[in-house]
Amino acid sequence: MDYQKILDEIYKEVKPYIGKGKVADYIPELAKVNPKQFGMSVVTLDGELFSVGDAQKRFSIQSISKVFTFTMALKMYSKELYKRVGVEPSGTPFNSLVQLEYEHGKPRNPFINAGAIVVTDSLISYYKDEFITLENILGFIREISKKGDININPQVAKSEMEHGYRNRALANLIKSFGNLDNDPITCVETYFKHCAVEMSCEELAHSMLFLANRGTDPLLKKEFCSPTQAKRINAVMLTCGHYDASGEFAFHVGLPGKSGVGGGIVAVVPGKMGICVWSPALNRYGNSYAGTIALELFTQKTGLSIF
Amino acid sequence: MDYQKILDEIYKEVKPYIGKGKVADYIPELAKVNPKQFGMSVVTLDGELFSVGDAQKRFSIQSISKVFTFTMALKMYSKELYKRVGVEPSGTPFNSLVQLEYEHGKPRNPFINAGAIVVTDSLISYYKDEFITLENILGFIREISKKGDININPQVAKSEMEHGYRNRALANLIKSFGNLDNDPITCVETYFKHCAVEMSCEELAHSMLFLANRGTDPLLKKEFCSPTQAKRINAVMLTCGHYDASGEFAFHVGLPGKSGVGGGIVAVVPGKMGICVWSPALNRYGNSYAGTIALELFTQKTGLSIF
Amino acid sequence: MDYQKILDEIYKEVKPYIGKGKVADYIPELAKVNPKQFGMSVVTLDGELFSVGDAQKRFSIQSISKVFTFTMALKMYSKELYKRVGVEPSGTPFNSLVQLEYEHGKPRNPFINAGAIVVTDSLISYYKDEFITLENILGFIREISKKGDININPQVAKSEMEHGYRNRALANLIKSFGNLDNDPITCVETYFKHCAVEMSCEELAHSMLFLANRGTDPLLKKEFCSPTQAKRINAVMLTCGHYDASGEFAFHVGLPGKSGVGGGIVAVVPGKMGICVWSPALNRYGNSYAGTIALELFTQKTGLSIF
Amino acid sequence: MDYQKILDEIYKEVKPYIGKGKVADYIPELAKVNPKQFGMSVVTLDGELFSVGDAQKRFSIQSISKVFTFTMALKMYSKELYKRVGVEPSGTPFNSLVQLEYEHGKPRNPFINAGAIVVTDSLISYYKDEFITLENILGFIREISKKGDININPQVAKSEMEHGYRNRALANLIKSFGNLDNDPITCVETYFKHCAVEMSCEELAHSMLFLANRGTDPLLKKEFCSPTQAKRINAVMLTCGHYDASGEFAFHVGLPGKSGVGGGIVAVVPGKMGICVWSPALNRYGNSYAGTIALELFTQKTGLSIF
Repeated sequence: MDYQKILDEIYKEVKPYIGKGKVADYIPELAKVNPKQFGMSVVTLDGELFSVGDAQKRFSIQSISKVFTFTMALKMYSKELYKRVGVEPSGTPFNSLVQLEYEHGKPRNPFINAGAIVVTDSLISYYKDEFITLENILGFIREISKKGDININPQVAKSEMEHGYRNRALANLIKSFGNLDNDPITCVETYFKHCAVEMSCEELAHSMLFLANRGTDPLLKKEFCSPTQAKRINAVMLTCGHYDASGEFAFHVGLPGKSGVGGGIVAVVPGKMGICVWSPALNRYGNSYAGTIALELFTQKTGLSIF
Repeated sequence: MDYQKILDEIYKEVKPYIGKGKVADYIPELAKVNPKQFGMSVVTLDGELFSVGDAQKRFSIQSISKVFTFTMALKMYSKELYKRVGVEPSGTPFNSLVQLEYEHGKPRNPFINAGAIVVTDSLISYYKDEFITLENILGFIREISKKGDININPQVAKSEMEHGYRNRALANLIKSFGNLDNDPITCVETYFKHCAVEMSCEELAHSMLFLANRGTDPLLKKEFCSPTQAKRINAVMLTCGHYDASGEFAFHVGLPGKSGVGGGIVAVVPGKMGICVWSPALNRYGNSYAGTIALELFTQKTGLSIF
Repeated sequence: MDYQKILDEIYKEVKPYIGKGKVADYIPELAKVNPKQFGMSVVTLDGELFSVGDAQKRFSIQSISKVFTFTMALKMYSKELYKRVGVEPSGTPFNSLVQLEYEHGKPRNPFINAGAIVVTDSLISYYKDEFITLENILGFIREISKKGDININPQVAKSEMEHGYRNRALANLIKSFGNLDNDPITCVETYFKHCAVEMSCEELAHSMLFLANRGTDPLLKKEFCSPTQAKRINAVMLTCGHYDASGEFAFHVGLPGKSGVGGGIVAVVPGKMGICVWSPALNRYGNSYAGTIALELFTQKTGLSIF
Repeated sequence: MDYQKILDEIYKEVKPYIGKGKVADYIPELAKVNPKQFGMSVVTLDGELFSVGDAQKRFSIQSISKVFTFTMALKMYSKELYKRVGVEPSGTPFNSLVQLEYEHGKPRNPFINAGAIVVTDSLISYYKDEFITLENILGFIREISKKGDININPQVAKSEMEHGYRNRALANLIKSFGNLDNDPITCVETYFKHCAVEMSCEELAHSMLFLANRGTDPLLKKEFCSPTQAKRINAVMLTCGHYDASGEFAFHVGLPGKSGVGGGIVAVVPGKMGICVWSPALNRYGNSYAGTIALELFTQKTGLSIF
């Protein structure tokens, strides 16, 4: 299939939607981003790369980082991790605190904030220090994306810390149930920092290759997780990857994926490719407006949906 | 692929698990079923049928009927239906009432009880009478399964009615928010009746063919819903089809599916086949114990998982 | 103290507020009432009666009837009753279903709807028939108010039944937890009927005398409950008698009391008198607008507040 | 009435219950207290003091301090305070987070932890510094109790800070709704510190005199709040003063009161006296086991209940 042609078509068709929606404005640093940007990249298992638009421009990956930390924790702890965090979809954001309370501090899945904070805590416990933890998260991301200069945007991290009271509430509640080993503020700060990593579409598409290839990056020939773990991560991305619009995404796009409020969405076509799309303005569910449409067009044009 | 050989292998490997778990006992009629039964059927798009065990024995389809009523309502009302029922996963059973309250009587998806009751209400409004509604549900089921003698077990329906206070509570709460057109008790009784339909694995596997073939039954050459609607139904089955174990099922089986407390599970391999497995004893999530294992073995042996 | 003079003053001062607020309109029968009415009565333990305004006009007592059914059940079951219904304040109406769920179908107190339905169920179990139950409730009310012609308004009862889906939801939920002996619809209908009793201010003030006199009506010389039970009923009226404004009422009025959406409020001055005020238009908490002000003026002018 | 004789009788009768129940053990410092202690004091409006047992021994006042901070904030902000904290009873502890979420960060009353944290925040905003705030809280307590050496136990405060994750979660959640002006951790620490004040029964009984005398301490001849504010504080103590047993306390004791997990309970007889009882072992609601019984005996023997 001529993926470059398909991406070019998508870029053309999606243009009227670029800038529609609303850039995340809960922290000043994210609110500054120009909404009229769009990039998309596809990397096949044999390393062919196709891109359009601002695919080389770095943006704040935000919740996409949860895929990376979940992968790292799953490799470290294997099934033991599921004692601390589940793999089932959660309901509305309203329920997050109710569910944590009712389920005694065990978050429903690693992609809601509560779950990602527990995952981050498990990494800090493993590395025994938050700085070393961040270094290793960065190291992992640099390796799977094949780019050594990926880094954290300190302004974004700082901005999150100044406004993240709800996440602090979650972390303290989890701690009160005994499901955090480390200090809740340390966990939240480390979490904010790995959310503030900046990457481009091309780098993120590359970083999905191991999930498209049963845990082993086909270019690096390195196993980052077992085939079963890769299947698990893909399944959790499909059922829980898009906040309160996971069902919509499963239908419209039909691929395992994960979105972030920075406007990025990664997706995986098992056995075939890694994908990333980015456009900063968000729809009412907090997922990239133009990005969601672009992915839907991609599965329509290629017939790659799983349904 | 030699599906008969694969089914024979599965039957052998799953034997130690048949009868493990617990038959649904919340109503006396279901509690009477012998747990030591197991059947499985696969039907390909060209009509080849493969079966093992008690695949011709009829059992109570229970929540699997929600797939049929959702299909009917989607065809009648198209996108209008989503104003009354969502397509997103819900959280714990505990949350069912909280969510209904918080979301003003709009159930999260058509496969939780609240959602299925709204779907049934929409059918009654369409047919203007509950008896005619049931006749049409039965007619639809008989057509897609190609068996004219499929029917409701009146003892099971009566037993449900005698114990279904929680479902009555849900229906009355939905009504209080104005999201039921008809009398809540009528809706619940009609719902209980279509749950009490009895079918065999072979019949249920056949009834999934239209979903495996973009809405059109390949043997009858008849469209039961549009390709987009079939995709939607499959997506909802994947994300919401197994109560509080939808995430687990997505991972272990990796196919759109729907389970019932009678011990049946249907699954769809898009573009390839319809599947049904049955074994009455349930795991702690209310899904067939041996049935879930059998489906997992099937996707392992055939490599048909979507991830 | 010259209570007649005080009532006359109150009547004059409260006039600008009569008709302010909103008549209960959730059922058509209650919505028809002329809001520009006001009556108030005080009866002392020695039987002196003081009245102003429409104190002899009968109105729908609604939730005030919960005081009578609670008294009857407490006499029948004594402390055993507390196994089925608590005596603690509840939170917001929103919480009613959440709390019932979390507390396994045991309502927080006998003055929220869920609790009153359980109390009504306990009366039906005692009398073994809902008709006999209603006859006995009416008999009790006629006796304590010394008026043989008090009766149920069948239009109001019917109107409630046609719109009371939320109460039906509560009753079915309680039943699903095993905390109703009788059919939930029977309980709700009986509950709606005793809420539809019509009485005047003079009759209701009289009916409070036994609670002002440690359980024994001073005029009839008859004990309707023990001194301890009377104290309990007064305490529950103070802490739970006014929906989500019980704290406000305790502060502003400072007397045990119970309001109904028909616009009536009864109050008790322990050791001294029974009081009833009525004006149909309600404030935003569902309590009589002018009535609440009149009671506040009464405690200010007489210094009878308990604080 | 011979109050000394009554206290002596109570001491004798309550002896079998002293030590029954369980000392608060959620922080190590409180768990160390010898449970076999009991003290009780009564001070009349003319300054007569009656005591029994360990009435001069200081203990951790814990939540009783909420009465003092609420009084101070009410005087500073008057009715404006009610925009930030309500005066209605709350439901179960489970509901605390649900209610805060549903009611957008406005706590139900100043005596649940969430409410007390908001009150503390309002004091810090007034004094513009947490150290000065604590100095003024201590100053207020020293003045109303007429004892200049009352102080904070730093070990208890430190112990709370090391274990108070749930309170930190509440504070951060309130902050996320914009209902805290200051840093949530500062608010929680200041709150923990004023809870760690140590006072004796005699001192606490004295400190209730202004509430028994319409806001003015009869011995100091000084108004600490207006008559209306005193009435409000008493009403809130009656309806919300004893966690999930406020209804039970209203019934059994029938006086405005406030308990703390240190085992102290203060109570007010409006127009007559201030009372304090202390015994460290708690009943299942977290209120002093022997203390509650002693207060019940006191109202029985004196007939001073408000019902």
